[in-house]
Amino acid sequence: MDATVRSAVQDYYPEESAHCFGCGRLNARGYRVKTYREGGETVTRFTPTADHTALPGFVYGGLIASLIDCHGTASAAIAALAAAGQEVGAGPAPRFVTAALSVDYLRPTPLGPMLEIRGRAVEVGERKVVVEATLSADGVVTARGRVVAVRVREKIGAGAGTDGTARAGG
Amino acid sequence: MDATVRSAVQDYYPEESAHCFGCGRLNARGYRVKTYREGGETVTRFTPTADHTALPGFVYGGLIASLIDCHGTASAAIAALAAAGQEVGAGPAPRFVTAALSVDYLRPTPLGPMLEIRGRAVEVGERKVVVEATLSADGVVTARGRVVAVRVREKIGAGAGTDGTARAGG
Repeated sequence: MDATVRSAVQDYYPEESAHCFGCGRLNARGYRVKTYREGGETVTRFTPTADHTALPGFVYGGLIASLIDCHGTASAAIAALAAAGQEVGAGPAPRFVTAALSVDYLRPTPLGPMLEIRGRAVEVGERKVVVEATLSADGVVTARGRVVAVRVREKIGAGAGTDGTARAGG
Repeated sequence: MDATVRSAVQDYYPEESAHCFGCGRLNARGYRVKTYREGGETVTRFTPTADHTALPGFVYGGLIASLIDCHGTASAAIAALAAAGQEVGAGPAPRFVTAALSVDYLRPTPLGPMLEIRGRAVEVGERKVVVEATLSADGVVTARGRVVAVRVREKIGAGAGTDGTARAGG
């Protein structure tokens, strides 16, 4: 495993955009999910707690949507870096937000096992990246998702969050 | 305002299905959102905390998805009661789970104001109800969502959560 594979893209978001409840390394009470490139795919792993119940024994669908959301924006950042010939961890990562999110819940997701979200950018444009992902528990796919992610325009001398032109999701 | 308008449907979910992180009255650390019938619409209101940041100053998209998700299953329950000629609060409410969720993030949702989710069941079947909703902050619609909700089959002598035939989302 080389260094690039071990670098989570969220660790390279600019400080002003690293407070996301789902994946911001600077949000002490958030989920702080980490997304890695593994070959042509991207992978996020997360183990829910008992709090994240839907019906007893199953994972809350809103958490599943949140994980797919942050996985999507992270995968978009990884894809944008790859398109620019850059490795994750070589410098700041671009920050994407969510324009559209859809999730199909195929079957109940058991609460207990670590969840694995695997994705792939299926469309990579300058500003817009589309990511498709699956979520699985114990090797069984329980949900599928799709994220349309839009790149936040960096402004000189202003934080990414102050850019009113960006759509803001995860 | 009559009694039915003041009753949140989540307060009438059977005890074994009232632990949802988003809307379960028995989940002490969840959001415990409440959804009300207001005329032909359903309404959920929720004020995020500073934890629920996306980019600084804006609401986390995963929270928005979660609110639309629980609003959708609650709206489905309200629609099913109405279809059976029953008022919210007159007895146990049916429990729906999410089969599919989609959210369009139209613009950044400011963090601070109370959010209002308003919805309507656009398709009401025996087992499947489709709900469309908008989310607004300070009167401005910032997101639109759609939830396909499926009714959990009640089994005699078994909790709703043990029904392996149900798809489980929020």
